[in-house]
Amino acid sequence: MRDIVTSQLPFWDNTRLWVIARPLSGFAETFSQYIVEVSPGGGSDKPEADPGASAVLFVVSGNLVLTVGGEKHELAPGGYAFLPPSSDWTLRNTSDELATFHFVRKAYEAVDGIDVPAAFVTNEAEVEGIEMPGTEGRWRTQRFVDPLDVRYDFHVNIVSFEPGGVIPFPETHVMEHGIYILEGKAVYLLNKDWVEVQEGDFLWLRAFCPQACYAGGPGPFRYLIYKDVNRHAKLPRLS
Amino acid sequence: MRDIVTSQLPFWDNTRLWVIARPLSGFAETFSQYIVEVSPGGGSDKPEADPGASAVLFVVSGNLVLTVGGEKHELAPGGYAFLPPSSDWTLRNTSDELATFHFVRKAYEAVDGIDVPAAFVTNEAEVEGIEMPGTEGRWRTQRFVDPLDVRYDFHVNIVSFEPGGVIPFPETHVMEHGIYILEGKAVYLLNKDWVEVQEGDFLWLRAFCPQACYAGGPGPFRYLIYKDVNRHAKLPRLS
Amino acid sequence: MRDIVTSQLPFWDNTRLWVIARPLSGFAETFSQYIVEVSPGGGSDKPEADPGASAVLFVVSGNLVLTVGGEKHELAPGGYAFLPPSSDWTLRNTSDELATFHFVRKAYEAVDGIDVPAAFVTNEAEVEGIEMPGTEGRWRTQRFVDPLDVRYDFHVNIVSFEPGGVIPFPETHVMEHGIYILEGKAVYLLNKDWVEVQEGDFLWLRAFCPQACYAGGPGPFRYLIYKDVNRHAKLPRLS
Amino acid sequence: MRDIVTSQLPFWDNTRLWVIARPLSGFAETFSQYIVEVSPGGGSDKPEADPGASAVLFVVSGNLVLTVGGEKHELAPGGYAFLPPSSDWTLRNTSDELATFHFVRKAYEAVDGIDVPAAFVTNEAEVEGIEMPGTEGRWRTQRFVDPLDVRYDFHVNIVSFEPGGVIPFPETHVMEHGIYILEGKAVYLLNKDWVEVQEGDFLWLRAFCPQACYAGGPGPFRYLIYKDVNRHAKLPRLS
Amino acid sequence: MRDIVTSQLPFWDNTRLWVIARPLSGFAETFSQYIVEVSPGGGSDKPEADPGASAVLFVVSGNLVLTVGGEKHELAPGGYAFLPPSSDWTLRNTSDELATFHFVRKAYEAVDGIDVPAAFVTNEAEVEGIEMPGTEGRWRTQRFVDPLDVRYDFHVNIVSFEPGGVIPFPETHVMEHGIYILEGKAVYLLNKDWVEVQEGDFLWLRAFCPQACYAGGPGPFRYLIYKDVNRHAKLPRLS
Amino acid sequence: MRDIVTSQLPFWDNTRLWVIARPLSGFAETFSQYIVEVSPGGGSDKPEADPGASAVLFVVSGNLVLTVGGEKHELAPGGYAFLPPSSDWTLRNTSDELATFHFVRKAYEAVDGIDVPAAFVTNEAEVEGIEMPGTEGRWRTQRFVDPLDVRYDFHVNIVSFEPGGVIPFPETHVMEHGIYILEGKAVYLLNKDWVEVQEGDFLWLRAFCPQACYAGGPGPFRYLIYKDVNRHAKLPRLS
Amino acid sequence: MRDIVTSQLPFWDNTRLWVIARPLSGFAETFSQYIVEVSPGGGSDKPEADPGASAVLFVVSGNLVLTVGGEKHELAPGGYAFLPPSSDWTLRNTSDELATFHFVRKAYEAVDGIDVPAAFVTNEAEVEGIEMPGTEGRWRTQRFVDPLDVRYDFHVNIVSFEPGGVIPFPETHVMEHGIYILEGKAVYLLNKDWVEVQEGDFLWLRAFCPQACYAGGPGPFRYLIYKDVNRHAKLPRLS
Amino acid sequence: MRDIVTSQLPFWDNTRLWVIARPLSGFAETFSQYIVEVSPGGGSDKPEADPGASAVLFVVSGNLVLTVGGEKHELAPGGYAFLPPSSDWTLRNTSDELATFHFVRKAYEAVDGIDVPAAFVTNEAEVEGIEMPGTEGRWRTQRFVDPLDVRYDFHVNIVSFEPGGVIPFPETHVMEHGIYILEGKAVYLLNKDWVEVQEGDFLWLRAFCPQACYAGGPGPFRYLIYKDVNRHAKLPRLS
Repeated sequence: MRDIVTSQLPFWDNTRLWVIARPLSGFAETFSQYIVEVSPGGGSDKPEADPGASAVLFVVSGNLVLTVGGEKHELAPGGYAFLPPSSDWTLRNTSDELATFHFVRKAYEAVDGIDVPAAFVTNEAEVEGIEMPGTEGRWRTQRFVDPLDVRYDFHVNIVSFEPGGVIPFPETHVMEHGIYILEGKAVYLLNKDWVEVQEGDFLWLRAFCPQACYAGGPGPFRYLIYKDVNRHAKLPRLS
Repeated sequence: MRDIVTSQLPFWDNTRLWVIARPLSGFAETFSQYIVEVSPGGGSDKPEADPGASAVLFVVSGNLVLTVGGEKHELAPGGYAFLPPSSDWTLRNTSDELATFHFVRKAYEAVDGIDVPAAFVTNEAEVEGIEMPGTEGRWRTQRFVDPLDVRYDFHVNIVSFEPGGVIPFPETHVMEHGIYILEGKAVYLLNKDWVEVQEGDFLWLRAFCPQACYAGGPGPFRYLIYKDVNRHAKLPRLS
Repeated sequence: MRDIVTSQLPFWDNTRLWVIARPLSGFAETFSQYIVEVSPGGGSDKPEADPGASAVLFVVSGNLVLTVGGEKHELAPGGYAFLPPSSDWTLRNTSDELATFHFVRKAYEAVDGIDVPAAFVTNEAEVEGIEMPGTEGRWRTQRFVDPLDVRYDFHVNIVSFEPGGVIPFPETHVMEHGIYILEGKAVYLLNKDWVEVQEGDFLWLRAFCPQACYAGGPGPFRYLIYKDVNRHAKLPRLS
Repeated sequence: MRDIVTSQLPFWDNTRLWVIARPLSGFAETFSQYIVEVSPGGGSDKPEADPGASAVLFVVSGNLVLTVGGEKHELAPGGYAFLPPSSDWTLRNTSDELATFHFVRKAYEAVDGIDVPAAFVTNEAEVEGIEMPGTEGRWRTQRFVDPLDVRYDFHVNIVSFEPGGVIPFPETHVMEHGIYILEGKAVYLLNKDWVEVQEGDFLWLRAFCPQACYAGGPGPFRYLIYKDVNRHAKLPRLS
Repeated sequence: MRDIVTSQLPFWDNTRLWVIARPLSGFAETFSQYIVEVSPGGGSDKPEADPGASAVLFVVSGNLVLTVGGEKHELAPGGYAFLPPSSDWTLRNTSDELATFHFVRKAYEAVDGIDVPAAFVTNEAEVEGIEMPGTEGRWRTQRFVDPLDVRYDFHVNIVSFEPGGVIPFPETHVMEHGIYILEGKAVYLLNKDWVEVQEGDFLWLRAFCPQACYAGGPGPFRYLIYKDVNRHAKLPRLS
Repeated sequence: MRDIVTSQLPFWDNTRLWVIARPLSGFAETFSQYIVEVSPGGGSDKPEADPGASAVLFVVSGNLVLTVGGEKHELAPGGYAFLPPSSDWTLRNTSDELATFHFVRKAYEAVDGIDVPAAFVTNEAEVEGIEMPGTEGRWRTQRFVDPLDVRYDFHVNIVSFEPGGVIPFPETHVMEHGIYILEGKAVYLLNKDWVEVQEGDFLWLRAFCPQACYAGGPGPFRYLIYKDVNRHAKLPRLS
Repeated sequence: MRDIVTSQLPFWDNTRLWVIARPLSGFAETFSQYIVEVSPGGGSDKPEADPGASAVLFVVSGNLVLTVGGEKHELAPGGYAFLPPSSDWTLRNTSDELATFHFVRKAYEAVDGIDVPAAFVTNEAEVEGIEMPGTEGRWRTQRFVDPLDVRYDFHVNIVSFEPGGVIPFPETHVMEHGIYILEGKAVYLLNKDWVEVQEGDFLWLRAFCPQACYAGGPGPFRYLIYKDVNRHAKLPRLS
Repeated sequence: MRDIVTSQLPFWDNTRLWVIARPLSGFAETFSQYIVEVSPGGGSDKPEADPGASAVLFVVSGNLVLTVGGEKHELAPGGYAFLPPSSDWTLRNTSDELATFHFVRKAYEAVDGIDVPAAFVTNEAEVEGIEMPGTEGRWRTQRFVDPLDVRYDFHVNIVSFEPGGVIPFPETHVMEHGIYILEGKAVYLLNKDWVEVQEGDFLWLRAFCPQACYAGGPGPFRYLIYKDVNRHAKLPRLS
């Protein structure tokens, strides 16, 4: 990621970004994801143009001040915020260092009789990883919302593998997955091909089927994963 | 299919499901299909969110009580229900065992002057398989509705092959097909490649062209097939 | 093409059809094409459901009576009709034999200040093939409308090659092409691959680039070709 | 590019064109691009049918007169014009020679609080190429608008390489790129494959990742590049 | 197999043949195999030029008279003869019909202290098929010599599958196999690809690994198989 | 074929050559083939180093004087000579123009009781093409020796196709074929791939299986073909 | 490995074997490797037919008695023996259990002035693994002979990786390698493809280039590796 | 190239080497090539085991003393020596630094009546590069022996390209080529694929057909090339 290829957004100051997913037919269809780098003093008082968009922010480096519902939150590395649609929020880098975060956006699918969830702010350090059964602790997922809570229509979680971690069974939903490797590297079996991924790679998958995974060492292999959940599949009107 | 990868739906209790087809560009565009597992006592009184959606339910295991138009129906394995759009229905597992069924949904394409068909409930045991001519009975199709009845805009049928069964001619429509293998295994010639499929596999095809098929033994090879039928192709307004 | 795989359409009697192109994302996006087989006495008084659809009919075998604008036309093999949107037309097989025709449909793109063209009926026997320059008469195109007449937003023409016919230059438009082989066979260079096509094959191409073509003998190689023309590319509103 | 494959547009006289990009699912989704050839006396007083379309014109050969906002501009080779949506413009070839230009069109994405930029006319000769850092001047970009000016939602620039020029780092945005080679040839590493491109080739890429590039000699390698910028990714409403 | 492509051999009269395997580097290295067609009255009194060659003859159609060691044998369809090196043999078609047989040749690898086996003549009708354990009789092998008899350095056997027959475990020797399909058809999994084979096909394999096999119906699937056995791998002298 | 890449041979004057086939494992194993260009005055009195080598010469352009067995022969274009092993021959270009010929060499496989054939000289103009049955004269072969004459162990023939010529059945011998295209072009189906060949291309094939061929026009498509014939497959001694 | 596919060898009793490598062109060219299973009481007094062959034996399971040079050695699992050419040795299973060992054979390349090494017997338990530098002990090799001892012309070693072990640099010799996986599994990058290997797999490689390796867990990944060493490449005499 | 993967050779002291080519079927068949690294004081008095082998030495780094025919030669970087078969030579590193050289070996093919060439020593600095015609000096070859001198049966030359250098015509001999990249990098078109090569890569090719080449900058692209020349193709005796 280098200077000459950055983008700008309206109403964001001293900020540049990389669009790693956006809705295009045959590509990500439900969400968009940016990596955003805010210089000291930068940020936005009008960060989101779409009133129907909900968002997750996840801070990779640096420190940011998020104001939402009139309340200020310090977001350090690992900082995580959920913002429902039509939230009134701002984001500012009040420090002297660059700050970098993931900005995941999705048009919220409201359901009659189901509440829209409220905004919340947390940090990955406060969220314990749940061990996948049968993996001897080598595969853990940090879930930021309760999987049974149907108010949410997407999850952004963090998955971690220890070296030699193995995925013992395939996941075969037709759910959109966006996967950004935060740390380490691994070899995945996708369809019939083995693919090596490492820090900074982004995968977008409709049917995520890592039939097998070899996480390399020496450190852990971790990724940020988006998936859409908890809603009926929409049926298009062809006419 | 394992616990950790299940999804939830609003207004369904004690239920988890796997989305095996949903409308996404370049993927299934007319229908969605779930495999739904209902625990004892579970089910839904508000099972469908989309008033324009019609549905087929096909029970794989367990027992369910379907109430539609005020009438109760016991659905045992092989149970099959057609539900037109805006049906008033509920589904409950009143037994002590898990129940699993396929839930196929499509936005009904109404045609002026053509009636919307009524709901009906049956069981595959009551539907005789029709032998394909020239296949010595090794290829049979159980049709749940009359192929000449243009009220229906999709079919969900069951196709069976005996070991060594062979498809003697290709089908070349540009119709969407969703195929879920219920039992057995086979090798298909799709385009230029031979593909092995077996119980639990799902195939989605726009142009279904099994130019050849070798059904393996020792038991039969059976699948549940969705196809859209009986409507003009919709012409998009590009502007 | 065999009995068991035919489709039905509302308001068509004694008719079955094969859908060889329909608008689906990543596939034909502007048109649909059917091969329609009408039994004696069959046909339709309400043949088109979409008032915005224009059509071309091209008769492959048998005899049909087309009534349009109150006027009757006998369509023998090679018969060709253009039908603008909202035409009042019927089609009947009044003979004792099966009749088969291509039914190509497109949503007409009206332009302010440009007239909608009127219906017309002709036969390929009345349309002379124009030799492509530099091909010694081995490549000819029968054009059914004037290529400079911007009222039409699609063309359905017939292209013929003599044995050993060669395409001397590539066509590189991003235009949708639907090609149905009427007679003979040939080998095409599409992208980097040679593909053999023969009578009854259908090709759909966005960027039609037959960099080379070897038409085999002993008879001619002929195809029916759809392409969309004479309109600005539509620019989608992403929001 | 030869006579028999040209297209026509309504309200353009003595003009023919080649559509090298247009919005189709799975292909260019935000823009269209034509190569337009105007004969002496030809042109249009009603060149654009879509009031929401903005455009860039870039003249490859010949001379044209552009009238915009009541002002006349002579466009010689290298001539470049930006036309915001709903511009009142005409284009005429008043010379004795053919004139050829690129016509890039995009539906302008207005943003509340951000002005629509005004039309402007310039020539590539007036725009200095900016050297990419670390390339010893072998890679330069002529930018026609300021990359920090968020009023614009797309850029059409010219990129040049000297023989042996190398791209030292990949660009990984999910931005649409349309690249038309104006001069010279080169070998690109796209994904895992090396591809040779030369004058007259057009590439369309969602994720443009020339991990490496060898520009061949003896002359420079130059291309015209479209990319969409400065806007939030639109989030579709699936229902 | 047609007239114009036949070959001749010295000292064979009224005979033509097809060479389906011969020693070439990277191809069959230990044996050769011909399909030989002898016209009435044809045959040879000097059938083998190489005194070190042993052979198997297997009659596919017609009748032949084999004289070996001064004794005459009538070879009807299914007739099978083993001929050790330096055998004194002749073969004649004394009937009025064409006769066709497989002629498999191998340089005999003598071992000090192990006898050279004698010639013998039999017919496949006299050799019972041995059921492979665990295949319910759907996979049988007719062995013409005892697998424990180390005098033989190659086997030519017949393998048969019933429709739906399945190979339950892979064979992983680096042994040369030549397989000629005598009857029926099947789909094999070789490495990662499924391959369809049918009557008249010949496969040559160094490492024969049919991890799976679907034998199609309605009749049996049978092949003649060569493999080299019972000898140490020869170690080449590189200098 | 350009100057800087030519080779030299011992005892050949004013001569350069291109080696288009030579025995290498996994490549041509029985023969070698050169294209030889002799300048005026050039040639050789010691043209062959290997006393066991037989040869065919075929003149493509220019004029040469062949002396064999003390007799002089003028070789004009189309000139063809067979030279058995240990022939005493010389070749000289006594004209003022370059002369080019194919020089095909093979180690002669002598058979006890079969004579070595004598040298002969002819010209393709004297050898009538034999029509392949069922090809309407579009496929002809000029045979330079009688296919039933088992003294020869290789053939070098000329095959010609008219435009649109089609190969109606495959040739499936495991015979080495070397094919040099003398004139025209065609598309071949080799295995599963279509390959385009044209004048100057050389193909080497172990199993020659042109399942289909489309000869392009406007002129004929002709090639020089080597194949080895009339001998038992040699069985290697592995020890 | 199942009963019906075993081979026999002359002078071996109650023994069956699988040939996993043997010299064939384009395959292993310097060595052969068997997996040998000896029943109680079985073995051989004449185990090697080739006086120029040297060998390594490596016991996988069971117990064997090796007599060499008149001395008896008990070979337990992990037992390893080197046998120079013309050794006088016998092998017997005197236990009540099956015994399985690898039998690696190579024609010894003698060098004037270099001694032939003597036979030796050891066990892998007595050979310490040497850590590869820079791998933190995750990659170790047990060498059975000194790599600087040029008397040996091949090595058979054992390589072990801990889970997450990584190969930090490629090995690029054109040396033959035969690799038999003894335990665990891993994913290798060979050329451009990732390949998964596991216990019981055999790889044969001319140029062994595992540019990367991910050893999976939970246990170690171990293989037996053959490579030829310490000799000049032999230069063939082509004539 | 790292310590743990080096090889040893008999009679070479303080020396390690990498075998980059050796005769194996389907691989280099006429030559072998090593990269040899000699430590101070190291070298050999018996460097070649095969009396029929000729050799070229080319020094990459360091200084060596070659004694041949009783005469001493200092070989600095760029030093080049030709050694005919049965030469009496030694090589020693008498300096304090490592020395690295290429050692190319071939069995000399003697021809009756043609002299064996004498040994010679030179340096690439003394050999001028010859410009290929039509390449504006961007492609040059340093030839170490006269291409018309048929005494030599192989050449080892150095080829250099300037950045942007292009190969204007293909070389189509069936000659073995071994290419070691000495400096720089480039993209080659081999068959239908573009391949990137850079310093330290080795290519082995039977039919060298760089139909196109883009040499990257900023420095030159240079390689050492072996090819066999000036001899008749050897014809194998199959029996």
